[in-house]
Amino acid sequence: MNKALLKQAEEARQSAIRLASASTEEKNNALALISDRLISKSDLILEANKKDTDEAVKKGISDSLLDRLTLNRARIEGVAEGVRDVEKLPDPIGEEIESFVRPNGLKIRKVRVPLGVIGMIYEARPNVTVDAAVLALKAGSAALLRGSGSALNSNRAITEIMREALKESGLPESSVALIDGASHDIVDEMMSLRGYIDLLIPRGGASLIRRVVDSSKVPVLETGVGNCHIYADASADVDMAKKILINAKTQRPAVCNTAETLLVHKDRPDLLISLCTALKDAGVTVHGCPETCSAVPFAVPAEEGDYENEYLSLDMAVKVASSIDDAISHIRRYGTGHTEAIITSDRESAEKFTREIDAACVNVNASTRFTDGFEFGFGAEIGISTQKMHARGPLGLREITSYKFIVEGDGQIRG
Amino acid sequence: MNKALLKQAEEARQSAIRLASASTEEKNNALALISDRLISKSDLILEANKKDTDEAVKKGISDSLLDRLTLNRARIEGVAEGVRDVEKLPDPIGEEIESFVRPNGLKIRKVRVPLGVIGMIYEARPNVTVDAAVLALKAGSAALLRGSGSALNSNRAITEIMREALKESGLPESSVALIDGASHDIVDEMMSLRGYIDLLIPRGGASLIRRVVDSSKVPVLETGVGNCHIYADASADVDMAKKILINAKTQRPAVCNTAETLLVHKDRPDLLISLCTALKDAGVTVHGCPETCSAVPFAVPAEEGDYENEYLSLDMAVKVASSIDDAISHIRRYGTGHTEAIITSDRESAEKFTREIDAACVNVNASTRFTDGFEFGFGAEIGISTQKMHARGPLGLREITSYKFIVEGDGQIRG
Repeated sequence: MNKALLKQAEEARQSAIRLASASTEEKNNALALISDRLISKSDLILEANKKDTDEAVKKGISDSLLDRLTLNRARIEGVAEGVRDVEKLPDPIGEEIESFVRPNGLKIRKVRVPLGVIGMIYEARPNVTVDAAVLALKAGSAALLRGSGSALNSNRAITEIMREALKESGLPESSVALIDGASHDIVDEMMSLRGYIDLLIPRGGASLIRRVVDSSKVPVLETGVGNCHIYADASADVDMAKKILINAKTQRPAVCNTAETLLVHKDRPDLLISLCTALKDAGVTVHGCPETCSAVPFAVPAEEGDYENEYLSLDMAVKVASSIDDAISHIRRYGTGHTEAIITSDRESAEKFTREIDAACVNVNASTRFTDGFEFGFGAEIGISTQKMHARGPLGLREITSYKFIVEGDGQIRG
Repeated sequence: MNKALLKQAEEARQSAIRLASASTEEKNNALALISDRLISKSDLILEANKKDTDEAVKKGISDSLLDRLTLNRARIEGVAEGVRDVEKLPDPIGEEIESFVRPNGLKIRKVRVPLGVIGMIYEARPNVTVDAAVLALKAGSAALLRGSGSALNSNRAITEIMREALKESGLPESSVALIDGASHDIVDEMMSLRGYIDLLIPRGGASLIRRVVDSSKVPVLETGVGNCHIYADASADVDMAKKILINAKTQRPAVCNTAETLLVHKDRPDLLISLCTALKDAGVTVHGCPETCSAVPFAVPAEEGDYENEYLSLDMAVKVASSIDDAISHIRRYGTGHTEAIITSDRESAEKFTREIDAACVNVNASTRFTDGFEFGFGAEIGISTQKMHARGPLGLREITSYKFIVEGDGQIRG
C-alpha cells in the first residue's frame, strides 16, 4: 500500500470526525472562503492551468478535451459562484428523517449523518475538483480527489487554495486532499481502502466506471451510462413527439441523459416518417431497423451495436415496435436503467409504461434531458445513479449522506 | 459459470418482472398458501429434516448446531405463523415516498419499487429458507437461496412446497429457488452474477460475511458483526446501569446486539465495583483493564483481543475511561458500527455521545438488545446492517426495496 495515500486517507478520516460535528455556519463559512480565495488567487490557478494546457497541446490532445481542460477568468468566476450556490443549499446533516415512540416508551429518531470520507475519481475537467470537494464538505464528509494526470497542475493549485481556505475557516485542511501520485495503481489502492473511504464515485467514461464498479472493495455509486429510449406510442401527438425527440437527442448529444434509440408503434407510419424527417433536418443520422429502412429512404441499416451502445453523437437508432409490450421488452434488454420516456395520449399506456419499466427515471411526455439534479430542484448534482441500491437517479446532497438511529430511553430493557 | 445456476438466475430475473407488477392481494394470497402448505405438508419436511439431522449426528455435529438444524411440528407451526405475520405487513411497493411539481409543470413522484432478485447466503437453520423467501416476495423480489449443505434435504423440501404454493397462487414458481449445487464455488459464482442478482445478503458468522463483502461484484448488505459497547457516564444511576448492563450482556449472549465491552467513567469507582459484581453474579467473566483489575479482585486481565472481538458468550471486557472523550475514542477504535449505548443522567453527555458516535444505533439509557426489526416496529427483520450505504440498522421490508422517479409532463423540453 502506498504510504502517502494511506497518510492522506488517515488524515481525511480524522477530518471527517471533526466535519461530522461542524455546524452549518462553520461549513458555510468555509465554502464562502473557498469561493473568495478561488477568485482572489485565480492568477495562481491560471498559471498552473497554462502548464497543463501547454503540455496537452504538445501531446496533441483533441480540441474538445483541450476545451474541457482549459480555465479562464470567466470560468473560475463561474466555479466560485457555484460554490456560493452550494453554500445557500439547506444543510442535509442533522435532518430528522423520521421519529417514532415505541409502546415501551423508547423514542427512536432516524437522523441524517455524513458518510465520512468520499473518494472521487474523475477525468480532465479541473472544475470537478471544486464541485466534488464542496458538495462533500456541505454533506459533512471529507473528500479524497483523484483527477486526471493531464490536469495535475491545475488540480494542485485549486486544492491548495481550498485547503488554505479550510484552515483559515477553522475546519481541518485535510478535509480535502488531492491524490496526486503518478502511478496508475493508485486508483486500485483507493478501491481497496475499506475502513478509510466510505464511498467512491467514479465520474467519466464508461470504461472508468466499469473498472471501478467491477473491482472496488469500497462501496461505489455507479453513475453515468445512459442508453436512453423514447417510445412514441400509437396515441402519440406528432408535434409533441417531434419537439421532445429533437430536444432529447440534439440539445446536448454527448451527455448521459440524451436519447439514443427511438421506438415507434407500428400502427403509426406517419409518426415514423415525421420523426425521422425531423431528426434528419436536425442533422441526426437515422440508423433504422428493416421496417424503418423500407419506410424512410435516408435511414442507414442499424446493427446490434446501434441498440446496445450510447452514441453520444448526432446519431439515433430507430426501431418499429409491434406493441407497447414489444417496446418495453426492447428497453428491458438494452436499457441501462437511466431514463426511459413514453410519448402518449393514452392514460393506460402511460401507466403500463411507468409501472413496467425499471429505470431511475420513467418519463411521460417529457424530454429525457430532465434527469438532472438541478432540473429536479436538488440545487446540486454529483452524478446520476444507474444502480438500485442506496440512491437512484440524480444525486444531490442528501444522496451522499447516511443516517443513524438515536434511541432514547429511561432504563428500558428487553423482555 | 455453472449452467444450472445461470438458468435459475435467469428464471428468477423473469419472475422478478412479474412480481414487480403483482398486486398486494396476489402476493398476500401466495404467502397464505405458503403458510398453509408448510403445515399441511409438514410430514414431508420432517422426513427430509430427519435425513439431515441423522447425517449431522453421524458427523458429530455440536449440540447447539444440531438444535438449530432440527425441525419439529411446533417449529414448523411457528415458521408458518411467521409467514402469516409477513402477509399482514403493509406492502412497501408502490408507496409514494415524495412528490413535487417543478416550476415548468413537471410532476415528479419518487415511488418505492422492488430490487428485483435478492440472493441470500446463510447457515444451518432451515427456517431462514422460509423467512428470506417470504420477505423477498412481500418486497416484490425473487429470492435465490443458498443455505448450508447440512440442511440440504430440509431446504429442498421447504423450497419445493413454497414453489408449488406460488404456482397454485398464480405467481411464478421460479420466484423462489434453492441454489443446491454441492460445489463451494457456487457462492463465488453467485457473487459474480451482476445483472442477475440485485442484492446479496450474507447471514451467518463473521468469516462468511467478510468473504462476501470482500469478494462480491453484486451489491451486498453487510450484516451482523456487533462489537457493542456500554459506557457508564460519571452521572449514571447505579440501578439503571446495572439493569441495562445485565440485560444487554446476558439476555442472549450469542447474538450481535449483545454488549461486549463496558466502559466506566474513572470518577465512579463505586459504579465500577457494583457493575462488575452484578456481572459476576450473573455468571459473566470480567476481563478488566489494569485499573479495573486493581479495584475488582475477581477480574481477569484483558488483552487487546478482548476489546477487538465479539465474545458472543458470558464474558465482558471492562475498561475505565478517563473521560467521555476517552470512551468515545475507544468506541471509534473498536466499535463495528452496530449499537453503542451511554448510561447517563446528564443531558449534555447524552447529546455529545449521540452526536459523536457513528453507529447504526446510538442508545441513551436503553439496552443494546433493542436493535432489532421487531423491537423497532418494522414487523420483520432480514438482518442488522452495519454499513453506511443504502440502509443502516435493522432491515425491514422497506430496506430491501429501491425507488424510481416517475416524471409526468405535457410536452416539456429542456431549455
